[in-house]
Amino acid sequence: MTQTQRTRTLGAILYERFEALDYYAPVEMFGGVGPELRIVTVAEQIGPVACDQGPKTVADFDFASCPPLDLILLPGGFGTVQQLGNEALHVFLRDRAKTAEVTMSVCSGSAILAKAGLLDGRRATSNKQFFDLARMQSAKVDWVTEARWVEDGPFATSSGVSAGGDMALAVIAKLYGKAKADSIAELTEYEWHADSTRDPFAKFLNKAMGGGTGGSA
Amino acid sequence: MTQTQRTRTLGAILYERFEALDYYAPVEMFGGVGPELRIVTVAEQIGPVACDQGPKTVADFDFASCPPLDLILLPGGFGTVQQLGNEALHVFLRDRAKTAEVTMSVCSGSAILAKAGLLDGRRATSNKQFFDLARMQSAKVDWVTEARWVEDGPFATSSGVSAGGDMALAVIAKLYGKAKADSIAELTEYEWHADSTRDPFAKFLNKAMGGGTGGSA
Repeated sequence: MTQTQRTRTLGAILYERFEALDYYAPVEMFGGVGPELRIVTVAEQIGPVACDQGPKTVADFDFASCPPLDLILLPGGFGTVQQLGNEALHVFLRDRAKTAEVTMSVCSGSAILAKAGLLDGRRATSNKQFFDLARMQSAKVDWVTEARWVEDGPFATSSGVSAGGDMALAVIAKLYGKAKADSIAELTEYEWHADSTRDPFAKFLNKAMGGGTGGSA
Repeated sequence: MTQTQRTRTLGAILYERFEALDYYAPVEMFGGVGPELRIVTVAEQIGPVACDQGPKTVADFDFASCPPLDLILLPGGFGTVQQLGNEALHVFLRDRAKTAEVTMSVCSGSAILAKAGLLDGRRATSNKQFFDLARMQSAKVDWVTEARWVEDGPFATSSGVSAGGDMALAVIAKLYGKAKADSIAELTEYEWHADSTRDPFAKFLNKAMGGGTGGSA
């Protein structure tokens, strides 16, 4: 057990056209930890932010007012492309990742982390069907094309959409013990895909980008 | 293929302390259908509604202003208990279910449908660990204790939390064809639990309520 009882704050970052499940599968899992983990919603501006599927989630903090973060969650989605050019987000991520215990991305969110320079010299993964979008952001990242998620130091990057819930449970197991993660999976009636190296979707590498090659990492 | 091209509207209902993934796993899946399906957020009052995990989703419509609905999604969560006494919600559900093509609940949401009298004479399921909460709302429902989800006429009720995504894909397959559902599962890198009768969580029946008996349905 690596259990600690101090209260942690998870900053879950929002931007227009984020992918709903990228955000809410980890929010569900981390929300099951208990009062020792608080989730706060953060965006460049306070107020409602629409996911790609339509519904809007309210950002309670902007980058300036955001409290200290122990954990950071960055979703992907079609909005990723616009955020690759949002220097304010990159500055926020670089600043907060310095002191965060774990900085996580889901799906194409790792493209933003890579663009911000945070993954250079590290192993990381991304959405399989748009993998080259991540790869194009930095050649200094050891991109892993077959993984449900990848942990390297204080960073955890997951494969597409649903993989974020699996990564979240792995991070919970590391921070709060495996029994806690198993209990959350049971309560959410979730068959946890707990092997980070098993990736049934690697075969679709870059399929949605037109079936690029890209080679292996 | 049972594909039709008319535009459908899905009303996704919010109430305080709804379970995040109950709502957003189906929203993710239905959001992948395309422009022929529009998702609208509905609650008793327009404005932000907090899920049990913290983040707030904005209800764009109240019960009076809500447009005609082809599909209805009712999540569960700890907020369910309070909604069992909310007659305004029951009236809305009874009224809208009359004309909806499919009315869906996730997790303890079926307890609310049962309390509203909508499941009488039908087969239905619910969250496994709090199953008796649903059962207590109506003895006229044929409660199925072992099922990932149950479809009966225009109603579909799912097991706990994660099961909502599987039910959503089944409803999408029915309305838009199996190829569409498979494509959404692939894009979301989701290993679809597509057998409605396989329920790995039935063994936890009423565990969270103190391990009640309840017998089989």
